Amino acid sequence: GDERLEKQIEFCREIDKEKFIKRQTYLTDGIHKENDAEHAWHMAIMAYLLKDYANEPVDIARVMIMCLIHDIVEIDAGDTYAYDAENLKTQKAREEAAKERIFSILPEEQKKELTALFDEFEDFQTPEAKFARAMDNLQPLILNNSNGGGDWKEHQVTAKQVHGRQDTTRLGSERLYEVTEEIIRENIEKG
Amino acid sequence: GDERLEKQIEFCREIDKEKFIKRQTYLTDGIHKENDAEHAWHMAIMAYLLKDYANEPVDIARVMIMCLIHDIVEIDAGDTYAYDAENLKTQKAREEAAKERIFSILPEEQKKELTALFDEFEDFQTPEAKFARAMDNLQPLILNNSNGGGDWKEHQVTAKQVHGRQDTTRLGSERLYEVTEEIIRENIEKG
Repeated sequence: GDERLEKQIEFCREIDKEKFIKRQTYLTDGIHKENDAEHAWHMAIMAYLLKDYANEPVDIARVMIMCLIHDIVEIDAGDTYAYDAENLKTQKAREEAAKERIFSILPEEQKKELTALFDEFEDFQTPEAKFARAMDNLQPLILNNSNGGGDWKEHQVTAKQVHGRQDTTRLGSERLYEVTEEIIRENIEKG
Repeated sequence: GDERLEKQIEFCREIDKEKFIKRQTYLTDGIHKENDAEHAWHMAIMAYLLKDYANEPVDIARVMIMCLIHDIVEIDAGDTYAYDAENLKTQKAREEAAKERIFSILPEEQKKELTALFDEFEDFQTPEAKFARAMDNLQPLILNNSNGGGDWKEHQVTAKQVHGRQDTTRLGSERLYEVTEEIIRENIEKG
């Protein structure tokens, strides 16, 4: 047998579970909630299409793979809603354990590579991580804007909280931050 | 206003619809069917992890974006099951019309770029297109293998038909073609 390839295939099977992790964001139909795999797919395409708006030049392959894997730990740790202060406290510990278990399915060198990409996204220092984070912020905003902010209403999220989350977008893309400002302003006007 | 960016954001909103296009493949739980966005997300990560097995060196960013967008036309044209001979006859015309409508939402240069990537995948000539196709074949095989071939049983797909579809994998990756042969053999033995 080919142990390396077997591990890789096992990892590919394992990550199917991300499709069962529901987020709080509603899809454009305003009825179904999005799952993590759908969210990551959407972010990666957006990154490719909007890359010219990054504040600094980015290696788009690295941005895309970062987008695609950034929520894999939620297979074990679950989705932590961006406005849920209580769950946010334990998020780090839950996600660290998940990261170790899930990436350990891979061959050692790919475990290291994906862990590094995951950490890079979380640490939020490189141009790629900053731009990927901007996508992580902008993607649900586009959905919320399309369906009347169903998610925000359900959770009584305030405009201030939405603004707070979007602040990091600015570090990835000034231009896309302007777009988020416009979208938030429109939605405040609509109530 | 910034017309280019508005078009891009409109396209990003439009492609959310891909999450509603169901495929025939069951997820690893054997209960839920996969949608196109989930499938594309899964393929793109697999491409990144398995790229060393491509017959020829590939530009992984191009493989990933090809994987991510290869089913976008199904927003209008619907999913055509790989073993549905009747629907396969009209697939090309339905998908051409969809391609024109959907990619036309983008600014002209990105319409051209994404149309070219889509056509490249379909034409199946470049190393990137061949490897992306191998992912398109292998990904549902991994799911079917994980859930007892629920999709094949439901549609009474024969081993010969499965083989036929997987033939194209060989042109993208001889090594991964061996894996598919093993998986098919195991599943024939299991019935």
